[in-house]
This record gives sequence, structure tokens and C-alpha cells, in this order.
Amino acid sequence: MIKVGIFGGAGYAGVELLRILVRHPAVQLMAVTSHDEVGLKVSDMFPTLRRQVDLRFVAPQDDAFKNCDVVFFATPNGIAMTQAPWLLAAGVRVIDLAADFRIRDLAEWEKWYGMAHAAPELVAEAVYGLPEVHREQIRGARVLANPGCYPTAVMLGFLPLLEAGIIDCGHLIADAKSGVSGAGRRAEMTNLYSEITDSFKAYAVGGHRHFPEIRQELSRVVGGTEIGLTFVPHLVPMIRGIHATLYAQLTSDIDGKALQDLFESRFSGETFVDVLPAGRHPETRSVRASNMCRIAVHRPQDGDTVVVLSVIDNLVKGAAGQAVQNMNIMFGEEESLGLDMVPVSP
Amino acid sequence: MIKVGIFGGAGYAGVELLRILVRHPAVQLMAVTSHDEVGLKVSDMFPTLRRQVDLRFVAPQDDAFKNCDVVFFATPNGIAMTQAPWLLAAGVRVIDLAADFRIRDLAEWEKWYGMAHAAPELVAEAVYGLPEVHREQIRGARVLANPGCYPTAVMLGFLPLLEAGIIDCGHLIADAKSGVSGAGRRAEMTNLYSEITDSFKAYAVGGHRHFPEIRQELSRVVGGTEIGLTFVPHLVPMIRGIHATLYAQLTSDIDGKALQDLFESRFSGETFVDVLPAGRHPETRSVRASNMCRIAVHRPQDGDTVVVLSVIDNLVKGAAGQAVQNMNIMFGEEESLGLDMVPVSP
Amino acid sequence: MIKVGIFGGAGYAGVELLRILVRHPAVQLMAVTSHDEVGLKVSDMFPTLRRQVDLRFVAPQDDAFKNCDVVFFATPNGIAMTQAPWLLAAGVRVIDLAADFRIRDLAEWEKWYGMAHAAPELVAEAVYGLPEVHREQIRGARVLANPGCYPTAVMLGFLPLLEAGIIDCGHLIADAKSGVSGAGRRAEMTNLYSEITDSFKAYAVGGHRHFPEIRQELSRVVGGTEIGLTFVPHLVPMIRGIHATLYAQLTSDIDGKALQDLFESRFSGETFVDVLPAGRHPETRSVRASNMCRIAVHRPQDGDTVVVLSVIDNLVKGAAGQAVQNMNIMFGEEESLGLDMVPVSP
Amino acid sequence: MIKVGIFGGAGYAGVELLRILVRHPAVQLMAVTSHDEVGLKVSDMFPTLRRQVDLRFVAPQDDAFKNCDVVFFATPNGIAMTQAPWLLAAGVRVIDLAADFRIRDLAEWEKWYGMAHAAPELVAEAVYGLPEVHREQIRGARVLANPGCYPTAVMLGFLPLLEAGIIDCGHLIADAKSGVSGAGRRAEMTNLYSEITDSFKAYAVGGHRHFPEIRQELSRVVGGTEIGLTFVPHLVPMIRGIHATLYAQLTSDIDGKALQDLFESRFSGETFVDVLPAGRHPETRSVRASNMCRIAVHRPQDGDTVVVLSVIDNLVKGAAGQAVQNMNIMFGEEESLGLDMVPVSP
Repeated sequence: MIKVGIFGGAGYAGVELLRILVRHPAVQLMAVTSHDEVGLKVSDMFPTLRRQVDLRFVAPQDDAFKNCDVVFFATPNGIAMTQAPWLLAAGVRVIDLAADFRIRDLAEWEKWYGMAHAAPELVAEAVYGLPEVHREQIRGARVLANPGCYPTAVMLGFLPLLEAGIIDCGHLIADAKSGVSGAGRRAEMTNLYSEITDSFKAYAVGGHRHFPEIRQELSRVVGGTEIGLTFVPHLVPMIRGIHATLYAQLTSDIDGKALQDLFESRFSGETFVDVLPAGRHPETRSVRASNMCRIAVHRPQDGDTVVVLSVIDNLVKGAAGQAVQNMNIMFGEEESLGLDMVPVSP
Repeated sequence: MIKVGIFGGAGYAGVELLRILVRHPAVQLMAVTSHDEVGLKVSDMFPTLRRQVDLRFVAPQDDAFKNCDVVFFATPNGIAMTQAPWLLAAGVRVIDLAADFRIRDLAEWEKWYGMAHAAPELVAEAVYGLPEVHREQIRGARVLANPGCYPTAVMLGFLPLLEAGIIDCGHLIADAKSGVSGAGRRAEMTNLYSEITDSFKAYAVGGHRHFPEIRQELSRVVGGTEIGLTFVPHLVPMIRGIHATLYAQLTSDIDGKALQDLFESRFSGETFVDVLPAGRHPETRSVRASNMCRIAVHRPQDGDTVVVLSVIDNLVKGAAGQAVQNMNIMFGEEESLGLDMVPVSP
Repeated sequence: MIKVGIFGGAGYAGVELLRILVRHPAVQLMAVTSHDEVGLKVSDMFPTLRRQVDLRFVAPQDDAFKNCDVVFFATPNGIAMTQAPWLLAAGVRVIDLAADFRIRDLAEWEKWYGMAHAAPELVAEAVYGLPEVHREQIRGARVLANPGCYPTAVMLGFLPLLEAGIIDCGHLIADAKSGVSGAGRRAEMTNLYSEITDSFKAYAVGGHRHFPEIRQELSRVVGGTEIGLTFVPHLVPMIRGIHATLYAQLTSDIDGKALQDLFESRFSGETFVDVLPAGRHPETRSVRASNMCRIAVHRPQDGDTVVVLSVIDNLVKGAAGQAVQNMNIMFGEEESLGLDMVPVSP
Repeated sequence: MIKVGIFGGAGYAGVELLRILVRHPAVQLMAVTSHDEVGLKVSDMFPTLRRQVDLRFVAPQDDAFKNCDVVFFATPNGIAMTQAPWLLAAGVRVIDLAADFRIRDLAEWEKWYGMAHAAPELVAEAVYGLPEVHREQIRGARVLANPGCYPTAVMLGFLPLLEAGIIDCGHLIADAKSGVSGAGRRAEMTNLYSEITDSFKAYAVGGHRHFPEIRQELSRVVGGTEIGLTFVPHLVPMIRGIHATLYAQLTSDIDGKALQDLFESRFSGETFVDVLPAGRHPETRSVRASNMCRIAVHRPQDGDTVVVLSVIDNLVKGAAGQAVQNMNIMFGEEESLGLDMVPVSP
């Protein structure tokens, strides 16, 4: 059994981790922290976990964490980098669902996240946990940077095109739409039901924190070539789901059939990437509450613009599910263990 | 392995059955019908089932059904009663998620459902499948009448009060609220997104088909005593969930603590009924996509009116999940086998 | 022109007042306060008011209020009672959309609202502003207590039955459902989009602040007779709207036709109460963004339980619209002036 | 008074026309048709119009239409082209909210709409009714082609850039998102509440009927130069609203301030186009139930990609409201008459 601890169990990524881990056949849940609710029963905060989780929230200093094999951080940015060192010293591996270890350029990280980095040496060591790209490095990771939700959806969609070298890397456009749970479980006016429902908007067009992460990872795919990226996130009145609509200019003449084949062959061995048949449009609900990414590729009017549609559940493949997928790889388990949920529909 | 067939796999109860059964460790899925889509791949209609179900929809006459141990009917009312005889003759047990075998009084059934009954003898034989009341009879059932969604939520809420004989049976009120999936997957104007969203209404106040079913089953609990029931269903702009708010006049002096104890002890052995601590209010999302019923009991202002709050997922405990629970009982499996889903939240 | 000021213009009732008043032909808008946003342009907070309102939020002490004919309080409970005295002294009439002047029994008010009352003498003077009941007293009011949203919907529904003396006043049930805007524009976890959407729940079954208000006003209708009331509020995943489902036991034999006539004749002269034809069910969206209350009366199975369905928009007839209706009466204007909005549908 | 008739009063554009016209001070409503509901009271179909509209639906042949000054068609495509001739012969002007007169190239129209055109000569005569571009021609129009919802939002957003000649016309991208009412009031499975809610998807990426309309009108702005356009529509789980996110490559060096000025000066005289201050993001709800278009322009990371955000209410500025705006122009009324609705928020 893998002994697992969770830092930050009171947010949406945290409760989703709990939902998955209590059904994971190779996991023993040891302890869960909550910044504000030490002592409270986890199931008193989340009635969905009644009869499932008997633990009470503990403080970060709890001894139980030293006996863990791995600790997940579902905390705000800036926490994992301060706690990881003592956990690693105790032999505990770390999977951070926040952004502390995602950006390799420390100055860039500090600019976007507005704080000094507390553990630069761990940034250098950390492995970026997108299994479909970095599976081998993930196996041996001590510090795992779990990708952001937008980056996961955008990366998987652009990947086959970039690897094939058939698009203009200087003018990529990612028009992305997210459900509201992506904003976290925080009491903020902008996330109130009455502010969000029956409305739609773009936000952070001037610059979103996932922009440098996406640009960095896209660039690594093409050997460090600089990427020209326009990234516009939008807020959708739905709880879960990300839909990335990706646009690129083709630099090679490739017909629709070959495009489709390119995507299907790139992901043919992947458990959690499903390329839809030509002409289809994935809905976010088709992956709701599951770890799947579904992708479709189009070439409208047979023009030189390729359009990729990529959907994930932001809390699963975009957070907790991918984190468990990474844990499975790190501990030599079947990659899909505990992640065989059928999406909930309707 | 239990060999299972499904009649009516293209509706919401049907796809929910599929979601549950493909993960059920003791089930082998044999065949699925769809009235309109014979030949279509099931996963082409429901992308959530891609990589999960390889079957194509077949016609009702398909030979595969004869080799089944049990067939579920997730069809409109009036289908199961015409198909059950030949299946039973072939040794196949039948679980009907529609209403064909729920009402024992044939004249009453024909009045509410507007057609002549095709198999009166099966009505007499059928077992009403609310496990928390009729578990023993369910074990041997050949024909299982799976309860309606409203009746399940209302029955479980009134049950302890009726069995204890402490309320006035002449003036029960069930103010019930349902998500929209309860209306089924039918192309009707009244169920359009733009007609439902951001609105709330009562419907069928003059008479709803679940009224006679609830009245019949409540009456059986009190030995056939006639029940005075007012049942008002409402439509909530949400996909899944039923919330029953139940009102009854206390005829005995019982304090809040004793009321709470009464509910907790009545359901103490039940896997799928969870009585909340005193003072709590169950949300429908606390049971979303799971087979759980959560109940709270209140006595406002210490008056003589008791208020019970009862929530289920109409597609699970109110339909497909309860049907699988019944199948487990009928075939001697652990009652919760394949039904250990943690509710999805948020 | 009526010179109007608003205290508390940054909440939902406040912005709804602004939406109505900027189109009101007899109103001149003088000043608007916001507790947190003094100096901010009103239209910077509410883009819907761009090109409609040129004012900036001011502090409560602003001189402009002394020149007003009337000031609306769309503030939290406890504000109007401290500000009303100096405004009245300056000859300004006061309409409070909060609860400061609604409950005549001071001890009762202090128990439910958890604070000492700052202006008991104004409670004695205040007029309860439900025009369909107290129109004459409203004309001369200096201090107007605008009714709560639930009380408005519940009162209008029970009114004809109580006045006719044909129901048992000891066992009234009001099962009420509200949209989320009723909780106000406050950054609270429980009102987040992801907490509310696709779910339904009851709340405050043990006791809601509108309970004593409803009981008081129902009692006044029947000459002070004590009322036995069970009031259960619920939260609906929609922005606007209240649906009250009311249950009472008939004490007289009255047939459906006579019940319908009773309701129609009671409200025949009312601009803002619309009795639907027999057998209909009002939807909350049928009154969305308008000052209308729509009511239907049913007698299921011709039994002795009468069911009344009453819907309003909680922000209009349940708050800002009714406040403007009261202002019109107080200043001798046509009661519907500025309130002729057609409900928005879909 | 302008005597007005409506063909197709039972759809969403029809009921929105009614909502606007019953408050229009210069309009007399003469007659309304419904294909399926001749004889039914309009307010029996739409309770929002109780006490507002006394008419019953009539057949298209009704004599009342001959006495109209103008008839609106809120019918499916293909109806206006068959009815317009006899109305024009009777001296009645025609405003078509459908697509019959929008596309000048008949072959193109017939390809996209799948039928032969019944009145080619009227296509040649018709004026495309986007007032911000064609105001002068609209004044004298006998046949007015009211723009589609997507084309309105996309056109207004690209307009200043195209007129200024500072973008590459060969690679325009319009990523557009629409509320569900855009699909009309039709009983189709895909528009059911349970199919749409809590999900998001693109559709018709291969080709949407608004594609040729947008391309034609964009091209007219630049003197007939061919436009390279990629148009991807998406469905948002909300009732009303369109959000167009537009991408273009700058061909001139223009800083953010100059871009902002360009947009502000282009629309400075327009009542129904509101350019937001730099850095803002318009929400669709900021125009809900109003005829306003709100626009923001961004240049992320000071790169060569300009991003325009443009929002409208698809049923108002995208349909009924713009139609009334055109009627006002055609009949010499103030352009905003009857269209001064403040958007409803929350």
C-alpha cells in the first residue's frame, strides 16, 4: 500500500483527491491538513465523504506525514515550496498540484507569482508531470510538478502538430474556456452564483499565470524554439470542465485524413487521451468526473488554419486525477489504477 | 457472472445503468436495445462510454436476451408488460424501472397510465423493490417493480414515522422537487434548456402518476390503513436530484432527541440510507451520482409538525442504482456490489 | 420630480433600485452610498449602468441626502434604524428594504436579529408596506417598512383564504423556494457558484428571520388570532425568483370554482397580482425582472387541503419594485409608474 | 403610430419582439401569426405577456397584415421570401430576422440553406440592416435583412480594425460563444436542459451558416477584398448572450492607446455600441435583455496579435432589438425609441 498524505484537503482539488483516493486499491490515506479547520471531521465539511473518510483535519506539522510515501499538495501557490524540504528529508516524495515547481526560470516564476521562491534547488530537480510527454522522468521523480489545468488541455491538443513540425510556432492561439471550480473554493465576490450564472466572459487577457507555463512546455516540445502564443481564458457558467479551442497556421500541405491519422497515432497507446473520429466535437461533459482528455482535429474549409478541440475535467485530468496518474507511475503501479471512473452523464 | 440485458438503453436511466454495470465486477453485459437506433454503436450515442462499451444497439427480438439471467427495462411505461412474459418463459428474471408492475390495483393503474394492462397476472406476482422495506421478498422475485424516484425519496422519509405510529396518517404532505433528468431524454419543448433554466415551478398539482404509488406503499406500511396524502412535485433547474420535504402532524409527544434516535435506529443497518446529525440539511449534490439517500428530521419551534428532508439522485437510488441494488439481492450478491461510488462534488 | 437617495447601492437590491429608478419618469436620483466604495463611479461597479448613471458612491453623511424627498435603505439590517432619525428630522421620508421596522414586538425583533433596536419609537410609527393590504396607511407613512421577499409571496397567497375565514389557522405550511440573489451580494463560501449549481437544499428549518414577520402579518389579517405556521425555506439554483407552495386545511366546504372566484375577486383591482386560470402553475420566470406576483389555487383530489402557488421576483416585488410601488403611493403618483416592465423570457 | 405585424410570434425572437413592441410608444401591434397555434391567445403561450397582449395568433393570410406599415418575420429560413412579395405589393415594408435576404450571392445562399430561393429580385433590393454600417441605406429600405446574431457581434468587433486597414485580412479568427436561445424554441434532443447544462462544446466547426454572411460583410468593409476567416461557434450553458473573441494579426505598428482611441472614436456617436475602458472584459450579462453591444480591445504582451472582445444579447441586438432599431430608422423615428431598456443584472 502506498501511504498517502494530503496538504490542503479543504479545497476543490483536495476533495477531488479524496474522492479518488478512497477508492484507490493501493492507497492508504494517512492524514489531511486544512489551514482553517484543524480538528474538524473531513466528512463534516464534505458530506459526500460521510462513511468514506474517518479522518479529522490535522495541522501541517503532524507526525503522520513523516510516515507517508508521498504527500500531495492541493494548497495555494507558495506552500509546497516551504514544506517540501522537510518532507523530502524524511524520505517522502512530493506531488504539488499548485505552481511552485512548474516554471524553470525562477525570475519568470517570481514575476508571475509575486513572491520570492523558497526552494530554487527543487525547481531544478522537479519533473513536469504530463505523463503523455514526460513519462520516463516521472518514474524517478522525488518532486513532481503537476501541470495546470489549462496547460494540460492546451499541451495535449498542440502536441501532435508541434512534434510533426507542421505549424507556424510564431502565431499559436489558445482560446480556452473553464468551469468555475477552476477558481478554487474561495469566498470571493466574483465567484458568487449570481455573478457567474447565465453569463460568459473572458478574463486576464493581458496575462494569465498559465501563459508562461504553456509557453515553456510548448517550447520544450520543439527543442527550445521560442513560441509565439496568444492565450485567452474565459469563464463558463459550469462547475467542471475545460475546453481549449486551438488555432495554428499549417506550414505543410496535409490533408484532413492525414491530420486525423497524426493525432490517432500519437495517442494510440494512451489510456487517458481519446481522439474522436473526424468531424466530431467533444463536449466537456463527456469527460466529467473522469481522467480522460478527448480531442478532435478540424481543418475548416480545407484552409491553412487547423483547429483542435481539447476537453478535460479541470479537477481530474487537470488536477487530482493527473496527480494520481503520476503517483501510479512514480510507484510502479498500473497507470490507470483507481482512475477507471466512467464519466457522469447527464 | 450475472448475464445482463437492457431494454431501452438510449434514455437517461439506460445510460446510467450502463455507467454502473460496466464497472460491476459480477456482471457481463450481453445486449442493449434502443427503439430508434438499432445498429448504432452505444458509444456513438454516449461518448462517455467510449472505450467502455463495445456493443451496438439491437432490436428487442434479439436472441441474446434469452441467454440473460436478468433483463432491465429502462423503457417507457407499457413496454415491460408486453415483453416480460416471453423472457420469463425463457427463464430470464425481469427488473422494470418503469411503472408497469408497481400498482396492485389494476383499475387504478389503468386510470393513471391510460392503457389496458397486458399482463395482470404479473402485477400480482411482482415484488415492489424498495430494499429497505421488502428485502426478503426481493430475493426470490422473478418480476421486480423498481420504485419510482419520488416514491423512493418520500417513502424512506416517512417510513420511521409511520412504523412508529406517531403521526396523523390523514394529512401527510409531500412537497417534492426534482431535477430535469427525471423527465427523461425526450425531445419536448417543456424540457428545453431555455425553458427550464433560471426558473422554478410546480407541476401536476392536480395529480401525478407517482401519487397512487406513494399512497399505496405508505398504506402498506401501516397495515392497509388509508392514507391522506397531498403530493406536489416541482421542477428544479438542475440535472439530477430529488429533494422531498415532508410534513406530518405528530400525534404523540416525542422530543427532538427521540425523533433523531428513531430515524437513526431504523436505518442503522442500511448501506444506502444515511441519517444526518440533528440540525443538518441534506443537499441533493451530497448524493450526486451515488446510490445514497440522506435524511434529516426536524421539529421546528418544537411544535406538533415534524419536517423530514430526504434527498436522492433520481437516476441512481431513484432508478438505475436501486435496480442494481435489487439485482444484487436477487442474485445473492453483496447488496452494495458495484455501487460504491463516492458522490461527485463539486 | 421626487428627489431620491439610496443608502446601500452596491448590493443586489440596490442595483435593482437603480435599474428601476433611472427609468422612472418622476424621479430625480440625487445620491447613492456604498459602505466600501466611496468615490467609485456607480457604473464602474455595475457595467449595466454605463450611460445610465453618472453618480459616484458617496458616504452616508453626504449633504445631498438632506435635500431628498425620500431615501431608500438597501443596507444590511441595523443601518436604517440608526440613520432614519436625522433624515426624518430633515424632512426626508424613509423606505427601508431591510428588516429594521418590520417587527412590532421589539423583544421578538431583538431575539431574531441579535442586536438592540436603536429607534423603538420609529418601529411604532412605521407602516408595513404591502400595498395590497395596507395601501391607505402607506400614503401617509414617514417610515415605511418594505416587506421581506418570502413574506410578500406567502402573504399574498394566504390572504384570500384568511380573509374569507375558511382555513384552519393553526396548521399553515409555507414551503418556500428562493433564488440565490436573495442571499445578497456577499463574499461567502456558501453562495459560490460551485456550491450552489446543480443542487437543491432546505435551510434554516429550525428558524428563519422571515418566520416571525410572516406570522405577525398573517395574524393581523385575522384580527390578531394566533397563527400556527411551519415555514421551510429552500435554495434554488437560479438567480431570481421566489416560489411559495402553501398548504392549508379547509374548514368550510368550498368547491374549486368558488375558490378560484375568491382569489380572482380579491385581487381584481390589483395591478401587480395576477391570478392564473384554474389548473395552471406559475413559473418564477413568468415574473422575472418585473413587479408582478402570479398566483394559482388548487384543491388536489378535491380533498380538504388547499394548495396555493405564489411566485414573485425576489428583487422586484420582493424588494426594489415593491419599494418603488410604495414610494409612488406615498407621493401620490400612479401606483405603477416606472414599474411597467414586461418580464424577460426566456 | 406605426402599424406592425409579426410573422412567427411563437419563437424566441418573436416573443422578444413582442416584449419590446408592447412598450414602444410609436407602435400599434396589429396581428401575430403562429404556424401551429392559430386561435390561441398569445398570452396563453407566453404568461409574461398576460395583461400586455390581447391578441390571438392568426394565420399568415390574415387581412390585418395588409393594413400594416411593416411586418417582421421571426420565422424559420425560407418563409419571408415566399410571403414578402404580396406584402410589398400591398405597400407593406418587410423586416426579416431570418436569413432569406442576407446573402447576395444566390448560389452561395442556396448551398448553405439547402433550398432554391423564391424571390431573387428581392435579394438584390434588400438592405443589410447593421445600422452602424448601413444607416443611410436602411432609411429607404423596403426589404430589410436583419443581421444574424453571430455576424452582428463579429462585425462590430472587427469593424474599426478593418476600416483602419491595420490587420491582415487573410487570417481572421472569430471564436464565438452563444447562449442556447440562439438555437430557437424547437423541441430537439440536443437542446434539452440535461444535454446542455454543466457542459460546453464547439459545434459546426466544418461550416456554420453564419460563416458566409460574416465573410461577405467583412469583405464589403474593405471594398470587396477577399477575407480569410476561421469561424468557430460554441454553445454556452446560458440562455442569452453572445461573446465573440476575435483575433487578428496587426500589419501596422499601433500601440495600445491608439488602438483604444481607434475603437472609441469609431463608435463615439453610436447609441448601442459601448467601448469599455482599456483593460476591461465585457460580460454577456452586462447587456442582458438590452440592445447594447459592449466591446473591449486588447493587445496581449504587446505582441502583433490584437484581441477584440464583443458581447451582445443574441435575442436583442442579435435579433429583435436590432430589428426594432432598423424599424425606427426606416420610419424616421428616434433610433433608440422603445429600446432604452437597462440590462437586467444580476
